[in-house]
Amino acid sequence: MTSEKIPYKIYLSEDEMPMAWYNLRADMTTKPAPLLNPATGKPMEFEDLRPVFCDELIRQELDNDTREIPIPQEIRDFYKMYRPSPLVRAYCLEEKLQTPAKIYYKFEGNNTSGSHKLNSAIAQAYYAKAQGLKGVTTETGAGQWGTALAMACGYLGLDCLVYMVKCSYEQKPFRREVMRTYGARVTPSPSMETEVGRRILAEHPGTTGSLGCAISEAVEAAASREGYRYVLGSVLNQVLLHQSIIGLEAKAALDKYGVVPDMIIGCAGGGSNLGGLISPFMGEMLRGERKYDFLAVEPASCPSLTRGVFAYDFCDTGKVCPLAKMYTLGCNFIPSANHAGGLRYHGMSPVLSQLYHDGYLRATSYVQTQVFEAAEIFARCEGILPAPESSHAIRAAMDEAIKCRETGEEKTILFGLTGTGYFDMVAYEKFHNGEMSDYIPTDDELQAGFEKLPQV
Amino acid sequence: MTSEKIPYKIYLSEDEMPMAWYNLRADMTTKPAPLLNPATGKPMEFEDLRPVFCDELIRQELDNDTREIPIPQEIRDFYKMYRPSPLVRAYCLEEKLQTPAKIYYKFEGNNTSGSHKLNSAIAQAYYAKAQGLKGVTTETGAGQWGTALAMACGYLGLDCLVYMVKCSYEQKPFRREVMRTYGARVTPSPSMETEVGRRILAEHPGTTGSLGCAISEAVEAAASREGYRYVLGSVLNQVLLHQSIIGLEAKAALDKYGVVPDMIIGCAGGGSNLGGLISPFMGEMLRGERKYDFLAVEPASCPSLTRGVFAYDFCDTGKVCPLAKMYTLGCNFIPSANHAGGLRYHGMSPVLSQLYHDGYLRATSYVQTQVFEAAEIFARCEGILPAPESSHAIRAAMDEAIKCRETGEEKTILFGLTGTGYFDMVAYEKFHNGEMSDYIPTDDELQAGFEKLPQV
Repeated sequence: MTSEKIPYKIYLSEDEMPMAWYNLRADMTTKPAPLLNPATGKPMEFEDLRPVFCDELIRQELDNDTREIPIPQEIRDFYKMYRPSPLVRAYCLEEKLQTPAKIYYKFEGNNTSGSHKLNSAIAQAYYAKAQGLKGVTTETGAGQWGTALAMACGYLGLDCLVYMVKCSYEQKPFRREVMRTYGARVTPSPSMETEVGRRILAEHPGTTGSLGCAISEAVEAAASREGYRYVLGSVLNQVLLHQSIIGLEAKAALDKYGVVPDMIIGCAGGGSNLGGLISPFMGEMLRGERKYDFLAVEPASCPSLTRGVFAYDFCDTGKVCPLAKMYTLGCNFIPSANHAGGLRYHGMSPVLSQLYHDGYLRATSYVQTQVFEAAEIFARCEGILPAPESSHAIRAAMDEAIKCRETGEEKTILFGLTGTGYFDMVAYEKFHNGEMSDYIPTDDELQAGFEKLPQV
Repeated sequence: MTSEKIPYKIYLSEDEMPMAWYNLRADMTTKPAPLLNPATGKPMEFEDLRPVFCDELIRQELDNDTREIPIPQEIRDFYKMYRPSPLVRAYCLEEKLQTPAKIYYKFEGNNTSGSHKLNSAIAQAYYAKAQGLKGVTTETGAGQWGTALAMACGYLGLDCLVYMVKCSYEQKPFRREVMRTYGARVTPSPSMETEVGRRILAEHPGTTGSLGCAISEAVEAAASREGYRYVLGSVLNQVLLHQSIIGLEAKAALDKYGVVPDMIIGCAGGGSNLGGLISPFMGEMLRGERKYDFLAVEPASCPSLTRGVFAYDFCDTGKVCPLAKMYTLGCNFIPSANHAGGLRYHGMSPVLSQLYHDGYLRATSYVQTQVFEAAEIFARCEGILPAPESSHAIRAAMDEAIKCRETGEEKTILFGLTGTGYFDMVAYEKFHNGEMSDYIPTDDELQAGFEKLPQV
């Protein structure tokens, strides 16, 4: 293996694309804890979840055993429109950092939704359509998930109702138009359209919203409409399953050149990207075949892994969803409005939470100006203007590569570049103008959230 | 050759990327007419152009003979960051249109500038840097060229001054921030910064600007600064040369599968994309090796080929540039402010103008609501949200495919998808809200422009 032979971008052929998703849970000794019914405190069964989720997705959600789940042909055809995504060797960034490290990134932003979210959106919309449903409801934070779902629904002819976190709705008006182009209806959350929205607005007038609150509204909207179900872009086991395509493709591309990463880095909000990227590698580690250093990177303003607690909590602010055992800041936690969109969720995927708890995964956090500094350096040398979310991983990868410069280590670093920042220019503008501040929640603020956690 | 074997996306490997640009002029029997010095009426020579352009670019501009011009290694390395671009088989669009036609598009939008403009930007910035210059100046209309140049200059460490057509500057504030991210300085045009800008503002207070006017400002800015030169994103022979990479890659990709297009369609503003896309195919036709049906698609609001005259005219509104023989609406022509950005140039590449004049190329035009209708259909089935510019080609390709449905012809259609519309959501919003109108200039308005053409 010589680095001279490795192209800037490694593309798999369509024949080499994965035929099945990989279910990481099958290889976990300690499985993620089950969702609990908040009324009874008992695990949610198939029938309990049917009013909210599509049948096939519930099966995937509850399946801790099947290692490989075939990707239906229709989904694979859709994937072919924008996948396989490139695995990029960051030659220019390496040169800029003067590092002996070898940096690779799996770039998921080359599609109109601008992120990896489309991987799960098309799967969830497909199963909804297959079940004969009329439409789906969802929430969106930075707008990437909503756009992805709108694209999938537009393609399949499903109705799509999106509750968009109000601060993103206002910061990113163009996102709304992209979703409308694909035929979706977009409502800023909290809204007066749902009972839970009205309640939250009464309690917190002037709130800029949160993902947890938008989830509550979308769940209520699905439950109160005939032929609708709720779909979610992160956190859930099924989403990590669909996102395993990121890691499977990345691993296949690296395998072609005999490259084995030492370190795998991803940004972490609800965990969809990180969980998908690491899954096949983590599987090897769980099966004792190989060791990797996995690093989750989160914003210091919403630090669920690094400063949260591992406990059962509601998935949503309105407390209409089941309880999940996860690293959480408390379901009422709302990050500072100053925080530039994305990675705003109070909790973390139960799968990743369990792995973190069991010591398979490290986590770190950065304040947002550190993240935008890295984003700008990356944009200038690698050409891609990254999403603020993805830039958390960029920052961590750069810091690791700089450490290698100092130690002389030739580490191979793989990180997930989840998306592009084309709809984040308000945040970039704030950064350019020096108007971006780095608010970090105090211990007392976090403690107040922990005290309200449900007793299970 | 069976269509089953053709993947959704054909990627060349890095080894298969072109090593040289193709200079279409070498195969033209009637060469494009030379640029003229407006003061003397004589052809511009190397020395005449040196105050404005870089030396190597002047050589390329004046070279009507060398068929292949090698691409320097540094440029090829930069190309590898975002090229080869995919050649996409539009299976979903074919299905949607129920057409027997086979539709392919060469997608140039998968880079942060969002368009093909980066292909020439890096070349021009590279030669400026190689000549030891400090920086470059330019104009930008829809903002794609300015972004591309900012990216190229950011990468090479060159200073970059961009004069942005005022209506685009106002409609696309985020474009400015992307350019700033790459370190460029952006000024709305006409501005008070230049003599020509002040003059145009005095004559037309409240003008929303035009490409021709922004060009004048950028040329003046370059000429009045030590160590600066002017660069242009379209129209010029050198730009078509650099953009030949689009057609070369497209042809190589089609050749791999033995596919020969019957028809090649591109949107046409100044001609950079169309000229690049068609060049190797047009070369075959000029050499008598094969026949193709070439179609230029322009906006009905700025119809230089379909309603302009073939004459010597200034390249810019301020009349500081040389005269070029081209199809033109007159250098004072400014399209309606209602027109949604892009393809706003009053003239057309002299190379394409000559070919059109000689009957090698057809042209047609569409009003903008026709274009946005096509854009929305395309976005929903092919997943990519297209730029309004590119959507002109989409519309024409769709109409051709629909004709095939009616006649049963199995035509193979190739079109250029030059870019994405992520920064055009204001225009999409107008379209969604039914606020987009279809202004077409009257014959009298056009006649007024023709009467002011310079006498040569």
